[in-house]
Amino acid sequence: MAKYKLVPTPGSKVSLKKYDPEFVGSYDKESARAEVDDLRGKLSELQERLYAEGKQSLLVVFQAMDTGGKDGAIEKVFGGINPAGVQVTSFKVPSALELAHDFLWRIHQHTPSKGYIGVFNRSHYEDVLVVRVNKLVPDSVWQKRYEHINHFEHLLADNGTRILKFYLHISKDEQKKRMLDRLRQPDKNWKFSKGDLPVRERWDDYMSAYEDAISNCNTSYAPWHIVPANNKWYRDLMVAKTIVKTLEDMNPTYPSPEEGLDEVVIPD
Amino acid sequence: MAKYKLVPTPGSKVSLKKYDPEFVGSYDKESARAEVDDLRGKLSELQERLYAEGKQSLLVVFQAMDTGGKDGAIEKVFGGINPAGVQVTSFKVPSALELAHDFLWRIHQHTPSKGYIGVFNRSHYEDVLVVRVNKLVPDSVWQKRYEHINHFEHLLADNGTRILKFYLHISKDEQKKRMLDRLRQPDKNWKFSKGDLPVRERWDDYMSAYEDAISNCNTSYAPWHIVPANNKWYRDLMVAKTIVKTLEDMNPTYPSPEEGLDEVVIPD
Repeated sequence: MAKYKLVPTPGSKVSLKKYDPEFVGSYDKESARAEVDDLRGKLSELQERLYAEGKQSLLVVFQAMDTGGKDGAIEKVFGGINPAGVQVTSFKVPSALELAHDFLWRIHQHTPSKGYIGVFNRSHYEDVLVVRVNKLVPDSVWQKRYEHINHFEHLLADNGTRILKFYLHISKDEQKKRMLDRLRQPDKNWKFSKGDLPVRERWDDYMSAYEDAISNCNTSYAPWHIVPANNKWYRDLMVAKTIVKTLEDMNPTYPSPEEGLDEVVIPD
Repeated sequence: MAKYKLVPTPGSKVSLKKYDPEFVGSYDKESARAEVDDLRGKLSELQERLYAEGKQSLLVVFQAMDTGGKDGAIEKVFGGINPAGVQVTSFKVPSALELAHDFLWRIHQHTPSKGYIGVFNRSHYEDVLVVRVNKLVPDSVWQKRYEHINHFEHLLADNGTRILKFYLHISKDEQKKRMLDRLRQPDKNWKFSKGDLPVRERWDDYMSAYEDAISNCNTSYAPWHIVPANNKWYRDLMVAKTIVKTLEDMNPTYPSPEEGLDEVVIPD
């Protein structure tokens, strides 16, 4: 069986060409879907423990090219758990107010509280991706951001937040297939935007930007995962597995009851 | 079959004694649970349409006495839908910063954006409930709040937000039973707080405060629903039914695709 390293070695220079977006290991669709169902049950139970404990939090970051499956993975992996314990934030084009602050200002407001799982659909990484490719700020500005991001993520980690970052890795051909699906299927039409085409034209520039973002910000406290994502079922499985494993490692525990509960009398 | 009016007539003076918390109509547990499963599927589909349309939003407010089932109803009704489209906010004791503003300031920040479902676990109504019973502000202050609430909810409604408010109505006996469960079952112990007992002692004061809140703020644009909640399965059914019916009435529609999609060519 071919090998695939989900998390690059911290400090190494990542080349995305070496990561096969078609990789599925020894899984097929059926076995993967069954395992995801099972993992969703575990995730549900771990989320409840995390909430009850109220001491740690988990931040899950999704980045991908258009049609890469950010929305799909979020729905599939988190779809079964109590929405009261999960806060999903979709970061769009920044507002004038957001642009009037440093690039982490709007992000910081949405980091998860203790006991919660925060999910970012796009993130502060856009500020070294689209911002870089479209030259929205001078090179000297975005180049400094990797270090700012590492410090910021370290701050969160030091405060009890575990951070998992997923780059959903699809091929350029797969994107074409998915875009054509959106064009051809009437119920998917609304998801197609002509504005996505100029982004596709800059595919190679985006790949370089992703490689630098992943290489420069792949730390022990906030590791990047390069998820083979041409097959949605394998993508969901890798994401779900990683999240469950991380939560198991965090091992949240139900808090002890208040003292003296055995003497409590509840009056009529 | 006995009758039960879920939504009091707007403008009428509500007496909670006339609402039977044991009411289950012609349902039994099994039929109710099956219908809730079915409704969750519908809710999931309606949520997607609401998001795709991006023009309206839904705000669902839960209020209840301790153990009344706010958390349970949220998990059961919203547990199956895409968490990216639902924003649950639990309002706790206000912070110093929040108290330094008017009582609607912190609430306003969490009203749902267009395309989203917002769920409030407790809400601005605490400011005419616990605040009133515990005399945290003078009478003249909380008495004016009903009108402020109505204006505030009207503002949201005028901006495309449908508002549903649920009071989960349990009896004092049922609360005792549920508190004893939390005391006796080790895995529920952590949910028990001795601080809930003084609140129980003021049961009648809370009922009066609820009656006034419901009577004064039961409007056509933000109706109160008094949900019989001694039976969890009937409670969930009433909540799910009301939400699905409301979303069906809002009838969100997929937006038209961009013009000229048939001429789009996706380059390799």
